[in-house]
This record gives sequence, C-alpha cells and structure tokens, in this order.
Amino acid sequence: MIEPSLDLYGEAATRVEAVLVELLTQSRARYALLIDRQGFVILHQRAPWAPKPPSLDSLATLIASNQSANEAIAQLFGESGFRETVQQGDGVGTYVEAVAERAFLVTVFDGSAPLGKVKLFTKRALDQIRAVLDETREAAPAADLGGSFSADAGALLDQLLGDGTTP
Amino acid sequence: MIEPSLDLYGEAATRVEAVLVELLTQSRARYALLIDRQGFVILHQRAPWAPKPPSLDSLATLIASNQSANEAIAQLFGESGFRETVQQGDGVGTYVEAVAERAFLVTVFDGSAPLGKVKLFTKRALDQIRAVLDETREAAPAADLGGSFSADAGALLDQLLGDGTTP
Repeated sequence: MIEPSLDLYGEAATRVEAVLVELLTQSRARYALLIDRQGFVILHQRAPWAPKPPSLDSLATLIASNQSANEAIAQLFGESGFRETVQQGDGVGTYVEAVAERAFLVTVFDGSAPLGKVKLFTKRALDQIRAVLDETREAAPAADLGGSFSADAGALLDQLLGDGTTP
Repeated sequence: MIEPSLDLYGEAATRVEAVLVELLTQSRARYALLIDRQGFVILHQRAPWAPKPPSLDSLATLIASNQSANEAIAQLFGESGFRETVQQGDGVGTYVEAVAERAFLVTVFDGSAPLGKVKLFTKRALDQIRAVLDETREAAPAADLGGSFSADAGALLDQLLGDGTTP
C-alpha cells in the first residue's frame, strides 16, 4: 500500500493548520493545501468565503503528478526542479511551491485575491511551515522509520533467523 | 501518423518568426517557441545571448502534455483551462500561454529577464500572432482541409464509384 511520505500529528499539525488559516485570511485565497509528492493531502484549510471545493484528493493527485512532469522540464535545463508554479485561469488560479523535498504547499485563489498577495503570504507561510517541520524532525528522531529503522530491523531478524551468510 | 494541428508557411511563418525575435529582444528571454497541443514545434527562435538549448522537441512534448494535465486541474474548478502558466526555478523559468485552441506560445527565460517584462512582451507577441493566424485563416480558406474537404472528396468519390446507397 502506498502511504503518505510526510505525516503531521498533534501540536505540529495544529500549528501548520493555524499557518494555513492565516495564509487564507491575509491573501483572501480560497483553499490552502499541504500535499506530499505522491499526491496525498496532509492538511488543508478552506476560507469561510470560499465555495464548496472540488475533490481535494483529485486536486492533490493531479498537482503532484504535474510537478513530476515539471521536474522533467526543469531537468532539460540542468535544474533539479522549478521552485514555484503559477497557473491562472479566468476565474481560478493555483500557486504551488515546494515546502521541502517531500511536500508542496498549494494555494488556490480567485479574482478577489491579487496574485502578488497570494505569492507574498504563501512564501511567508512556507517559512513558518518549514520551521515547524524542522522542529518536529529535531524533536522526534525516533519517528524516522527510514534507513536506520530498516537496518535495525534487519539486524534483529538476522539475530533471530541467522544472517543468511551461514546457512 | 500524427501530424501538427497547426502549420504555418511562407509569409505568415516569416511574420510570426519576426514576432518571436522581437519578443526575445524586448524581454531578454532565451527562447520563444510556438508549439501545438500535440507537442510539435511549429516555429522557434533563440536569442543571440542564449546558450545552446536542450532538445526543443522534448521540451514541446513535455509542455504540451503538462498543459493537458493543467486542463484537468482547471476543470475541477469548472474552468475549461488555465490561460497562463509560469514556472520559475533558480536559474530558468517558463511562461506558457494559449495562442488559440490549437497552440501555445512558450517563452523560456533566466534571471536576466524580469518576469514582468517576459509576461508583458509575451502577451504583446500573442496578440500579434493571433492577428497573423486570423488573417491567414481568412486569406486562405482553400487551405482548410477539414470538414468541407472531406465532404467534397466524398462527393467526388460518390460520383466516381456510386454513392453506396444504390448498389
């Protein structure tokens, strides 16, 4: 099963949600989403003045897959990826910026939110979200189930079952 | 075989090429491409100060497929598509705007071309290209090999071979 590459719980999630609410209040945008690179919605907020949103899961999936294609374009020019993407339609626009290697912040806005404000407050929110993620990482190293977890689990299994080199 | 959905020859092509050169000169961007929705490069220009470009065919293919994904995002919000897309990386950015239903104008720029200028002169170039396309369409109705051509050809074949309803 595919699982989100970034999870936020408890106080960290509450703080990031407050950042998203602040972003919407200041920019007058409609929706703010923190999504991971696989297209999972990690957190989202909807402004009180925004109409009912479309499926946010579909939106996150489409944006994440789009960002992969964007990376292919950036790589043609020797870059690892584009830092930000703005799409503007007649009624609605999206602003997407990478939070870290694992996630994107997506702001959906309409004509009542000037693009300059959307960019400014999205960038401000990004700094705050990065700070929360950094603190969370430092505070909870035990939550890292990456390489060292696998190695530890592997070593434990080796002890229990033999390491395969001595059959 | 897949063929470009938009072709430009002769004087019309020369005029659009001049528009692309003017766009690059005024915006200080690197490359300007007119591509169709299928990802074919119709016309392109490279600024004298631009480094050797990557494969423009690959770039056009990636951008055209990206625009299809963009349309899926726009449709979630009840729009037919996004009018413009800006991608900015640390070194290079792209600005894409729909010329008509069949084509996109793509401007590739770097840090020496301010985004405001790129947008302004790309929009100006768009107006000029649209005017050329409109004139070309009006001046050369015989070049339309769409519905009426098929109908005419069908009628001719019916005359030659019988119309199939009277075997």
